Amino acid sequence: MPTIIVYLREGRTEDQKREFVRSVTEACRQIFGSPPDSVNIVIQDVPATNLGKAGRLRSEGSAS
Amino acid sequence: MPTIIVYLREGRTEDQKREFVRSVTEACRQIFGSPPDSVNIVIQDVPATNLGKAGRLRSEGSAS
Amino acid sequence: MPTIIVYLREGRTEDQKREFVRSVTEACRQIFGSPPDSVNIVIQDVPATNLGKAGRLRSEGSAS
Amino acid sequence: MPTIIVYLREGRTEDQKREFVRSVTEACRQIFGSPPDSVNIVIQDVPATNLGKAGRLRSEGSAS
Amino acid sequence: MPTIIVYLREGRTEDQKREFVRSVTEACRQIFGSPPDSVNIVIQDVPATNLGKAGRLRSEGSAS
Amino acid sequence: MPTIIVYLREGRTEDQKREFVRSVTEACRQIFGSPPDSVNIVIQDVPATNLGKAGRLRSEGSAS
Repeated sequence: MPTIIVYLREGRTEDQKREFVRSVTEACRQIFGSPPDSVNIVIQDVPATNLGKAGRLRSEGSAS
Repeated sequence: MPTIIVYLREGRTEDQKREFVRSVTEACRQIFGSPPDSVNIVIQDVPATNLGKAGRLRSEGSAS
Repeated sequence: MPTIIVYLREGRTEDQKREFVRSVTEACRQIFGSPPDSVNIVIQDVPATNLGKAGRLRSEGSAS
Repeated sequence: MPTIIVYLREGRTEDQKREFVRSVTEACRQIFGSPPDSVNIVIQDVPATNLGKAGRLRSEGSAS
Repeated sequence: MPTIIVYLREGRTEDQKREFVRSVTEACRQIFGSPPDSVNIVIQDVPATNLGKAGRLRSEGSAS
Repeated sequence: MPTIIVYLREGRTEDQKREFVRSVTEACRQIFGSPPDSVNIVIQDVPATNLGKAGRLRSEGSAS
């Protein structure tokens, strides 16, 4: 059952996403006992212009 | 009020989305009594490289 | 694959939710050709105090 | 149209939520020109045991 | 902690998004006392063909 | 930056959630190079009556 929505800053490679899906699914199996095929992961690539932190867009760089 | 976020594998046509929105809104009306204009649906097209199932990316095809 | 997150105003019965899941899954099958066991639906019950529309909480009733 | 899902640490009052909905809806109107009744806000109260930051649950307090 | 997911109709400018992030973060600070760097905002640009309201896609224009 | 929303079937313990947050944050660090304090995880506990799979509520048990 675990359904996981992952918002990532744009730019990650397919290999990174493959490794992340493998790792998180394994964590679900080990920790929650979830059968791997019950783990659904949706990755959303988000551009820096669409990410806000501390009142600024990531595309602006950090304030400090 | 029903607000519905739909993650779909990339590639569905506008006609399919139109039909799906019509059908889900009608289900909300019939089942929950929701006025149609209170039903908000957001569709997110997701590439196969961003979908994880059973520990693999959909772009890898299924394990079996 | 369709993963669907549904935010509903608190108070719907289990029967209503069962009927809604059945109906939306059937819409996915008919319209997108999704195998029923690939359709994941997560319902979130939301109290009126947590729903904002037109700048007001639903618990306040509509402005008009 | 703006549909906004807000995850808040559990414990905010109804007054705070009312003020937040009013303020965010006004920001949508002023900045995006959205008619207020097109702005949908869903607030999700999340207990500290369900919030992870820097690898720890909020219920554990921060590491430092 | 506030984590806010914002679904916006596609077409908003970076300036509008910057102003919106600034304004919503300030509302979190004033209303909830959230430190600005604890406020995470994710904006999702959604095409009109992926937005359903009152049983129609936004790309179809309103029924009335 | 990774912001992760996790929908879990109700009933997991705080220890399981702690371990899961630790494990997923570590995966973000190793795979994406994300600083741990940039990883935000929100867990949503979902009752079986609110989970739909293969057209049925989880509270109904599987069809087979």
